[in-house]
Amino acid sequence: MVLHGPNLNLLGTREPGVYGTTTLADIDRQVGERAAARGATVECHQSNVEGELVNRIQEARGRAQAIIINPAAYTHTSVAIADALRAVGLPAVEVHLSNVHAREPYRHGSFVAPVCVGTIGGFGARGYGLALEAVLDLLEEKSTS
Amino acid sequence: MVLHGPNLNLLGTREPGVYGTTTLADIDRQVGERAAARGATVECHQSNVEGELVNRIQEARGRAQAIIINPAAYTHTSVAIADALRAVGLPAVEVHLSNVHAREPYRHGSFVAPVCVGTIGGFGARGYGLALEAVLDLLEEKSTS
Amino acid sequence: MVLHGPNLNLLGTREPGVYGTTTLADIDRQVGERAAARGATVECHQSNVEGELVNRIQEARGRAQAIIINPAAYTHTSVAIADALRAVGLPAVEVHLSNVHAREPYRHGSFVAPVCVGTIGGFGARGYGLALEAVLDLLEEKSTS
Amino acid sequence: MVLHGPNLNLLGTREPGVYGTTTLADIDRQVGERAAARGATVECHQSNVEGELVNRIQEARGRAQAIIINPAAYTHTSVAIADALRAVGLPAVEVHLSNVHAREPYRHGSFVAPVCVGTIGGFGARGYGLALEAVLDLLEEKSTS
Amino acid sequence: MVLHGPNLNLLGTREPGVYGTTTLADIDRQVGERAAARGATVECHQSNVEGELVNRIQEARGRAQAIIINPAAYTHTSVAIADALRAVGLPAVEVHLSNVHAREPYRHGSFVAPVCVGTIGGFGARGYGLALEAVLDLLEEKSTS
Amino acid sequence: MVLHGPNLNLLGTREPGVYGTTTLADIDRQVGERAAARGATVECHQSNVEGELVNRIQEARGRAQAIIINPAAYTHTSVAIADALRAVGLPAVEVHLSNVHAREPYRHGSFVAPVCVGTIGGFGARGYGLALEAVLDLLEEKSTS
Amino acid sequence: MVLHGPNLNLLGTREPGVYGTTTLADIDRQVGERAAARGATVECHQSNVEGELVNRIQEARGRAQAIIINPAAYTHTSVAIADALRAVGLPAVEVHLSNVHAREPYRHGSFVAPVCVGTIGGFGARGYGLALEAVLDLLEEKSTS
Amino acid sequence: MVLHGPNLNLLGTREPGVYGTTTLADIDRQVGERAAARGATVECHQSNVEGELVNRIQEARGRAQAIIINPAAYTHTSVAIADALRAVGLPAVEVHLSNVHAREPYRHGSFVAPVCVGTIGGFGARGYGLALEAVLDLLEEKSTS
Amino acid sequence: MVLHGPNLNLLGTREPGVYGTTTLADIDRQVGERAAARGATVECHQSNVEGELVNRIQEARGRAQAIIINPAAYTHTSVAIADALRAVGLPAVEVHLSNVHAREPYRHGSFVAPVCVGTIGGFGARGYGLALEAVLDLLEEKSTS
Amino acid sequence: MVLHGPNLNLLGTREPGVYGTTTLADIDRQVGERAAARGATVECHQSNVEGELVNRIQEARGRAQAIIINPAAYTHTSVAIADALRAVGLPAVEVHLSNVHAREPYRHGSFVAPVCVGTIGGFGARGYGLALEAVLDLLEEKSTS
Amino acid sequence: MVLHGPNLNLLGTREPGVYGTTTLADIDRQVGERAAARGATVECHQSNVEGELVNRIQEARGRAQAIIINPAAYTHTSVAIADALRAVGLPAVEVHLSNVHAREPYRHGSFVAPVCVGTIGGFGARGYGLALEAVLDLLEEKSTS
Amino acid sequence: MVLHGPNLNLLGTREPGVYGTTTLADIDRQVGERAAARGATVECHQSNVEGELVNRIQEARGRAQAIIINPAAYTHTSVAIADALRAVGLPAVEVHLSNVHAREPYRHGSFVAPVCVGTIGGFGARGYGLALEAVLDLLEEKSTS
Repeated sequence: MVLHGPNLNLLGTREPGVYGTTTLADIDRQVGERAAARGATVECHQSNVEGELVNRIQEARGRAQAIIINPAAYTHTSVAIADALRAVGLPAVEVHLSNVHAREPYRHGSFVAPVCVGTIGGFGARGYGLALEAVLDLLEEKSTS
Repeated sequence: MVLHGPNLNLLGTREPGVYGTTTLADIDRQVGERAAARGATVECHQSNVEGELVNRIQEARGRAQAIIINPAAYTHTSVAIADALRAVGLPAVEVHLSNVHAREPYRHGSFVAPVCVGTIGGFGARGYGLALEAVLDLLEEKSTS
Repeated sequence: MVLHGPNLNLLGTREPGVYGTTTLADIDRQVGERAAARGATVECHQSNVEGELVNRIQEARGRAQAIIINPAAYTHTSVAIADALRAVGLPAVEVHLSNVHAREPYRHGSFVAPVCVGTIGGFGARGYGLALEAVLDLLEEKSTS
Repeated sequence: MVLHGPNLNLLGTREPGVYGTTTLADIDRQVGERAAARGATVECHQSNVEGELVNRIQEARGRAQAIIINPAAYTHTSVAIADALRAVGLPAVEVHLSNVHAREPYRHGSFVAPVCVGTIGGFGARGYGLALEAVLDLLEEKSTS
Repeated sequence: MVLHGPNLNLLGTREPGVYGTTTLADIDRQVGERAAARGATVECHQSNVEGELVNRIQEARGRAQAIIINPAAYTHTSVAIADALRAVGLPAVEVHLSNVHAREPYRHGSFVAPVCVGTIGGFGARGYGLALEAVLDLLEEKSTS
Repeated sequence: MVLHGPNLNLLGTREPGVYGTTTLADIDRQVGERAAARGATVECHQSNVEGELVNRIQEARGRAQAIIINPAAYTHTSVAIADALRAVGLPAVEVHLSNVHAREPYRHGSFVAPVCVGTIGGFGARGYGLALEAVLDLLEEKSTS
Repeated sequence: MVLHGPNLNLLGTREPGVYGTTTLADIDRQVGERAAARGATVECHQSNVEGELVNRIQEARGRAQAIIINPAAYTHTSVAIADALRAVGLPAVEVHLSNVHAREPYRHGSFVAPVCVGTIGGFGARGYGLALEAVLDLLEEKSTS
Repeated sequence: MVLHGPNLNLLGTREPGVYGTTTLADIDRQVGERAAARGATVECHQSNVEGELVNRIQEARGRAQAIIINPAAYTHTSVAIADALRAVGLPAVEVHLSNVHAREPYRHGSFVAPVCVGTIGGFGARGYGLALEAVLDLLEEKSTS
Repeated sequence: MVLHGPNLNLLGTREPGVYGTTTLADIDRQVGERAAARGATVECHQSNVEGELVNRIQEARGRAQAIIINPAAYTHTSVAIADALRAVGLPAVEVHLSNVHAREPYRHGSFVAPVCVGTIGGFGARGYGLALEAVLDLLEEKSTS
Repeated sequence: MVLHGPNLNLLGTREPGVYGTTTLADIDRQVGERAAARGATVECHQSNVEGELVNRIQEARGRAQAIIINPAAYTHTSVAIADALRAVGLPAVEVHLSNVHAREPYRHGSFVAPVCVGTIGGFGARGYGLALEAVLDLLEEKSTS
Repeated sequence: MVLHGPNLNLLGTREPGVYGTTTLADIDRQVGERAAARGATVECHQSNVEGELVNRIQEARGRAQAIIINPAAYTHTSVAIADALRAVGLPAVEVHLSNVHAREPYRHGSFVAPVCVGTIGGFGARGYGLALEAVLDLLEEKSTS
Repeated sequence: MVLHGPNLNLLGTREPGVYGTTTLADIDRQVGERAAARGATVECHQSNVEGELVNRIQEARGRAQAIIINPAAYTHTSVAIADALRAVGLPAVEVHLSNVHAREPYRHGSFVAPVCVGTIGGFGARGYGLALEAVLDLLEEKSTS
């Protein structure tokens, strides 16, 4: 399951000269293709509502084997999303488009990162692909060990 | 009115060996029976969405005489829930299943507690029953004074 | 577009002796009339849900020329609303009914103010009117420059 | 064992118009009766001296099955009381008459709470009764498991 | 009475390409005309000296009905100006040309704002006009209540 | 009632070349004579035990009209002494031999000062005499108003 | 030399029902009489300007034997006044009318206190008389040692 | 260029039951093979000395097109390594074997991250491969744009 | 003189499987024997009361040549014990059974350490012996220099 | 233009054994001679009043090509002086007689330094000469580039 | 293995009147003799380079049974040394010549202490001997248990 | 002796359009010539390794009369360099090319500055010349006093 947080639905539809023309739909399709190439499927959701992201994480239990999440602005303020990830117990990877460490100080902290397997940040849309590879490797490793 | 915050809907349905098998429905039923024994009725809601909890608190005005709330993760981040409780002016009690003081530092602060009559934490599902007793005593005292 | 944050829907309907009898509907009507007097129209929304306010801000793109927002409790906790305002790029004004600097310390900080043109606080319902004047002046100035 | 910290001996004997007329003796008697109703006995002590409270906690080992403690002012400054509770290993409950979260910031922290099973605060003298119920439930549960 | 703090006397006379050509005299004249249109008069002063601003605030007692003040750099360092405003007890409004929340962190705090009715910031010279409207509305409301 | 905190019993008996030869007994006698000169009597106690100072403050109720206290090291760590002074409600004056503001930072804060009428520090043993004058003036003023 | 900081010139002339009718002139006269009774003379100045207080302190060298200063709001923000006192090297006493420890946190710190012999606060106008006594005792002691 | 910071030379040679048997030589070989598969070459160095890592980074200029660095313990204390990366201006990626956000607070800060394109953490030795892919994508993209 | 702070009287009498069976009496005896072997005598006291430890330290003057103190929980909260040690002026050594730096952050600070010659921590009961050796060496050195 | 802040007028006239006999007039003369030797002229002012220093800085525009300023105590508290320097836009150098980094912590921060070209501190009166050299070099460089 | 951090090589060769004439070579010899007396051998190294100390700690694995380390200035800044000690897993003791708790605040923290068995500080060169005794006792105890 | 810290060896060899073409060799030559003009000689070293700078400082004893040091990134993190300077006791001057006060907050602190005679920053390569003049003046003054 791939989850996108607040304002990510605007990707690619605004100021293409600055942010590129890759839309969230493009990202979801690319991640889907990359997953298919390794025999896996992904399910993607975006929401601007913190609680709906919590709902999605809860639904992932029984329906997904891992979670790739870009909590965007909720990264820095949501204990609820972190609690949800901790509760469902699936391996999760935190993705950020930009390098949050090079931005405002209040974006340096993350409630979500400590409950994830790892984090990938600063590589733009490409980060989702890297996260997918990491997650699939992890799952394969588990199933063979 | 009894309000349960984010991720509490997962209670009892996951890792029963660890968290016990008491579900949120069990808690709501037990609180309801205990209320009935003292001639009162309770109405219970759970939501993962901060704003919906605000909605529920606002609805309590005119429909309930007091609020028992376990804001879970929103305890530590939600000024909005605290403002809602302050606005409706009903006596409220904050309940926590675990002893938040024995957990991470960011769980020690509470925006909600200062606008409540009192707090009860660390007694598991039993805390709701204690909160109910406290609330009913308070209401009786008021009505007789 | 005029946006009202959590608990503002209770305005005027409670303890009129203390808070006055001006309701949110009254405010919206007054702002509408004042806008009409200068040949403009306003669209007003209130929500208790942080993510719905993000949705509304996103919708403003293409539908409104500016945003007047009273984020209420989310002023101090919502990075998501600030990100949304930054993303849509419309001129925005932050309004507060009360003087937040004279209240609790956790109400002194604002994630939203840095992405607004300016802030107006402490003048009650009248602040929306002042914000409207400021916004219309700004837009006129831009269109003539 | 029920322990009362500094200045609690003044309860009820001063400004009855403000603080009520319930004295510490009244509280001890009420708790005793409530305990008797469930077939238990309580032993109550008050001291203004931090070290004597430590002594009492140490004596509880072998003589009591649980501790109900209102450390009052020592809640926020006494590592020694917390260490004593940790050392004797009996289940303990922290009680506060007032809601400390609604008072000065230096009353928000507690050295004692992290070593207790749970805390109950803000319900006045009634809080001791709630603590007793919680403690007796805990002990029954343990003895039957 | 309208008071301008340190360095505001340089407005409009320097780098007009950047800061515009509106001088402090222009602002004072505009505020005066806007006041006249509502049947009021204003008296304007600027000083670079903290203590002279305190003097002016003290003189306002008996001579003015309200104070509009842009304390500029003293906003963030002057307890004396805040004390003076508190002492004379006239309704006061804090104005800032720029949006201080979008500048250096040491400009986010204000000793003056908590003793004012409200604050208006980020609208340039136009902010004084908004403050005047707000002040006159306040005074009318008081005189009719 | 005059109360001396921990280690003050060593005054004058040690390193007279450095600290002078005035003992605590000398101070008590001088304060007593100065009180007698104005028709008042004083009762003096010293203790190294925080809780005994709390006891003494409680005993002052009904036995004394005011309290002069030098809490020494407990100034900076004792919430219990402050609570006791608040509880007995007698006018109190905090005295320090040395100027605590010129010493270590952890001696700059005081839990006790906020519940006193005033503080006198830095004048050595003479500070008790000044405190006595201040207290007697206060009591005279009250009795005549 | 007696120095009064900003806003103290308003004493007694405003809201006499609240602050009493003692004016700064009254205080200066009373201190003068008390000094005369012990064969000393005082010279009193008030200024709202930080730098003028620095000037006065510098002038005290050669003209006065000690300084009694109530820096009011500058207590908490003026390194310059503290430096001036340190530079002239005369014994100084800091006086405050109110108990600053019972007010806002930013009034708890003092740049001036560490360079004074001692501080006296919370006794209203009477504090100046106590400071005078303390200063005269100090000077007598020095001249006789 | 791949750089490994202090203590990484111990990898795989100690407690294989815990940390696995992958040595630093294994990692370097795997990264080399993965690079070769995409037609690139890597040069790997490890040092326990902060200044030697600075030297290596400086040497990378002219010899490498990008830097993959695991600064290990120097992540949190070395301004010098960050300055070196900033100075050479090559695109860099920070890699961590473990999820530093789930470890001690002093490991949450990073002087190095803000000067990198991005960071990858928590995936063990696999992280180097992900970093390599990210770096090669970046370089290809640049050369084609 | 050897002083043991709060809760150390429980040593060895509880959970011997965890804490060992060495009691405080054993420690005192061992230290006594080790002292005797070097021709010295020790006097040992334990108290749970902060003020009684202050009393003991004061008594040490004239009766002992040095102090070995394990202030336990009071290490981190007692300015009074530090002041007492400073006042009596005997060489003192702070001993801790456990390595306080590896425990909770509030156990990292020490009011007592700065007034001691040195500190020894983390060696269990053996630390007292090391402290004794250190103290005797110090005293010998002094008496021969 | 050379500006001297508060208390610098006392230089050389007090405790010559400690601070030397160089007066501010001597410094001004020396700087003048050194300037003359390079064909430049200087204008020197001292004030104890923050606002007058702001006035002087503003006057420098059009009259001077650079500013050498020793803000003394105002270094650490004056946003107004920093704003004035920023506003006039002339190259400025901050000079300190002593090494502020070796003094109290509150002297380590500087509002003024960030708006200066550079700072020179710790070389006594000689620092002004070094600053002059630096400033003249800068101006020559500019005029030739 | 005994490790000495930066600047310790200067011991005894400089200002013998102040620091004594014991050189690092003397210390190493004394520790060696004391070890020999108990049938053990020591190997001693000093380095001013943080990374070389890391190298030495790594080499200790397989060559030594324990580490005595005085990290000097690196105590407070080196995560790398702490990580190295953690990695090699040998029992380590931190030694300091002076009582770091009585020095500057930035010397109170230690990255190294939490990974050591214990710390010994303030006893000068003698501390190494105490550390050796402690380490040998520990090793004997282990080998016999 | 002139010491240059990490990354300064890159000066002038990179991005000459931005940083100028002055290399470290140029600086060393210019300082040498300026020294020769006053009859002195300088010895210059650069290192990226913190410990080698410590070595160089130690070697300066007996070989140099003063130290000019630009610790670059180690300014803010190296207690070891500060300790070395303190240990050798030679007069030292800290130089910075840029104005560190106008850069990131973590560059505002300096461990090195408190142990230097003074600091010079913000004047680029020219700062070394200013430092040399200051140092030679100091040494002349000493030799003649």
